[in-house]
Amino acid sequence: MSPGSAPESAIPPHLTVERTRPRRVPDDYAPPYPSFVARNAPEVSQVVMAYLGLQPTGDPPSLDALDAALAAADGPAHHDRAAGDGEIVTAAYWVDPDTFDRWWAAHRDAWLGDGVRDGHGRWAEIIRPRVEEHETLFSSLGRPEGVAVLAEGMSGEVVEHAYWGGMRDRIPLSQTDPMLGLGAPAAEEEAGRVRVRPPGGLCLIRSGQDWTDTDGDERRMYLEDVEPVLRAGMEFLRDEGAAVGCFANRYVTVEGGERSYGMSWWRSLDALERWSESHPTHLAIFGAAMRYLSTLGPAARLRLYHEVSVLPVDGQLFEYVDCRPGTGLAPAG
Amino acid sequence: MSPGSAPESAIPPHLTVERTRPRRVPDDYAPPYPSFVARNAPEVSQVVMAYLGLQPTGDPPSLDALDAALAAADGPAHHDRAAGDGEIVTAAYWVDPDTFDRWWAAHRDAWLGDGVRDGHGRWAEIIRPRVEEHETLFSSLGRPEGVAVLAEGMSGEVVEHAYWGGMRDRIPLSQTDPMLGLGAPAAEEEAGRVRVRPPGGLCLIRSGQDWTDTDGDERRMYLEDVEPVLRAGMEFLRDEGAAVGCFANRYVTVEGGERSYGMSWWRSLDALERWSESHPTHLAIFGAAMRYLSTLGPAARLRLYHEVSVLPVDGQLFEYVDCRPGTGLAPAG
Repeated sequence: MSPGSAPESAIPPHLTVERTRPRRVPDDYAPPYPSFVARNAPEVSQVVMAYLGLQPTGDPPSLDALDAALAAADGPAHHDRAAGDGEIVTAAYWVDPDTFDRWWAAHRDAWLGDGVRDGHGRWAEIIRPRVEEHETLFSSLGRPEGVAVLAEGMSGEVVEHAYWGGMRDRIPLSQTDPMLGLGAPAAEEEAGRVRVRPPGGLCLIRSGQDWTDTDGDERRMYLEDVEPVLRAGMEFLRDEGAAVGCFANRYVTVEGGERSYGMSWWRSLDALERWSESHPTHLAIFGAAMRYLSTLGPAARLRLYHEVSVLPVDGQLFEYVDCRPGTGLAPAG
Repeated sequence: MSPGSAPESAIPPHLTVERTRPRRVPDDYAPPYPSFVARNAPEVSQVVMAYLGLQPTGDPPSLDALDAALAAADGPAHHDRAAGDGEIVTAAYWVDPDTFDRWWAAHRDAWLGDGVRDGHGRWAEIIRPRVEEHETLFSSLGRPEGVAVLAEGMSGEVVEHAYWGGMRDRIPLSQTDPMLGLGAPAAEEEAGRVRVRPPGGLCLIRSGQDWTDTDGDERRMYLEDVEPVLRAGMEFLRDEGAAVGCFANRYVTVEGGERSYGMSWWRSLDALERWSESHPTHLAIFGAAMRYLSTLGPAARLRLYHEVSVLPVDGQLFEYVDCRPGTGLAPAG
């Protein structure tokens, strides 16, 4: 923040309502280091996040048709592509649902329709969080990722971070709503095509890291001390996450850069909170990151960010075609 | 808990009120391992905790007179004695303030009066938490410590633990009150005698460990893997705690047993929460304890407990006679 300016709330004025649920920290809470959130234009009320996955059998097919669709009319305002664990994942973001709906109507069949089935798995996981149902967090300015690319800009330093519960406190809906998990996914399968209806309260986190700017000791520390611990946590969630309320986890590397992200689907925000706060696999990640950041201080050039959404039952779309059992929210078998 | 019984709230029914501040976890939260709290008789409304410290200069003087006082009429229902960092600390507990007041009127001068000044430092830190302002937590049953010795008994398994914020959620006052810190201690010094008026919201934690029952690998793990990390955290709070809102910390070993405890005074409950949740020194303690407990599982024989109070301005007594500057809440110089 500039000298003399106080940190601002992560919840912008136009989404601030009279609280029935207090923030977890007192009014004089001062975070020990800076973080920032994306600021949407006030007229943005709901965005769309579409994860489109390819699960190749052998050599992957061309994604040229998908790329052409992304570049066509009504295409996303931003997308990126990443790979990991035998999947190629395109994450695309729209700033309003109407534009997305037109795009999906025009291009759905070219991605998921019976006409393009060729033995490779394809899937779509598409959510429409309202701005009240969503938050972001960035460790530094200047290189927005994910949904933040759509934003009007970034905040100044925000208050609600660097404590357990900050994630919840940054979501505007938390002012009045406990955001409970309300059940389990319901799946229908027919001839290799699985459609899943998620439960209310489903939570998505995309949490990323960008080590492009690091060098020397910092780079070595990230790659040798932090990344292996992060990877172990991601593999735990992938393989054993069900026990802690994590339906699915992917850990992928973004094409053409030294960037990666994890994305995971959770039964509820509180399940994500509990794993983050108490599970040895995440405490190891947190501890490694804390040691890294406290060693480097403000000189750290690693960039960290995340985005978290908590969703109602309606308006989400999960569909898997010719995919391995257990892909995403699809049943394991 | 016995088969079929659900965990119970740490807040007993007679102290349960209509909440204006929600608990941090949803109603279906199930802790991953058992813990227990002390249950006072319903007629107990306020207890007294008196820490009486001797700071010897050279060979310590006899504590026979103090022991006689503790055994006299109106003496404490329970006390223990511990030593560390050049201090001998007697912690004494009364189940009601009136009995304590009579005892203190009869024995104060024999502990702190000018007539017994002999060059050794002596101090008293005495608080009177109401039951609404106080909580306990025990990892196992059968050997109560501290204020729990006064209790009618122990609870069954409780809900509010094993997450950050459980400490606050176990204090009945948290149902309606943020328990904010309201300032700094105010000290008056005259001829080697320092009296301190604490700020509202002052918080005390006594947090103990008992490794009497451990042997073999468990004993080695506690002494080699956990204790040094705990000690480092205690030394951080003692030497650098001011920066995180810790006014004072003592780490002492109980006489005649393989037991120790840390006791620390905090500006507020939220300062204690922030250190616990985010400071590398406590995360190291927490991580070491988690590794220990997850390695041993239910076979662990280490016993852990704590007691936490959050206090109003009035009713507390802090007095230091011929002590080193910076003892307890006394100014550093």
